Amino acid sequence: MNPIHDLLITPQKIIKVDEGDVFHGLKSNDLSYRGFGEAYFSSINPNSIKSWKRHNVMTLNLIVIIGKIRFVIFDDRNGSTSKDSVNEIILGPDINYSRLTIPPGLWVAFQCLSDSKSLLLNVADIEHDPNEIDRLPLEAFAFNWRNI
Amino acid sequence: MNPIHDLLITPQKIIKVDEGDVFHGLKSNDLSYRGFGEAYFSSINPNSIKSWKRHNVMTLNLIVIIGKIRFVIFDDRNGSTSKDSVNEIILGPDINYSRLTIPPGLWVAFQCLSDSKSLLLNVADIEHDPNEIDRLPLEAFAFNWRNI
Repeated sequence: MNPIHDLLITPQKIIKVDEGDVFHGLKSNDLSYRGFGEAYFSSINPNSIKSWKRHNVMTLNLIVIIGKIRFVIFDDRNGSTSKDSVNEIILGPDINYSRLTIPPGLWVAFQCLSDSKSLLLNVADIEHDPNEIDRLPLEAFAFNWRNI
Repeated sequence: MNPIHDLLITPQKIIKVDEGDVFHGLKSNDLSYRGFGEAYFSSINPNSIKSWKRHNVMTLNLIVIIGKIRFVIFDDRNGSTSKDSVNEIILGPDINYSRLTIPPGLWVAFQCLSDSKSLLLNVADIEHDPNEIDRLPLEAFAFNWRNI
């Protein structure tokens, strides 16, 4: 797998506490912090896929806090050193508790791999703006979503 | 219940999506946004209470995304118009999906009211700093935690 240029995966700490653990997310002095616009959650149901989206302005900082999610990222940026690369990253608190930073201009789709609902947090550098988002159906880019 | 001065409860939207709902959290133009220092999660186990903490600098923006949590806030600030008030707020995505903004200087403890683990997100205006936190055992302030 040819790594996509400027896609960052940053392992995050889980701090054990008797009454309930604490999970780090994002700090303002982290390398992948690009400013604060909005924090929101996206849930994904078992056997579901949220299809291709491209943010043209927003940088995403994604943390999977419940379940297990497969992210597939496709780079069709002109001039990118990783043009036409597809990267697959599986995140979840029990298997890989990391933050995934996705710069603008990349296509992203994601799939629930857990038996119950999965949940991600996005700490984005701008507020939600439908005008900066492109969308495509799942068939637009080849990927074998059944291969788990 | 005498409302504690400058404690804010802001209802948040849940957007229905077939593949999995989207849950609003905090936007940079919200009235209760005080800047971004850190986003982290705190989980709390069934039958557990996380005891009294007072942040002397940090403003907390709390969202309960899984389960049900009772927050108890005690105001012993000198000169506060709500001095000696105790406020109880129960939050969770199925009963009251709201953001709780707690300014510095108030005592907070919280209790899991759900049968399985509950989870909250804090979007704080400063990074974690143990020097700005005071802690007290549960017995320090009277509250009937068994009254549910």
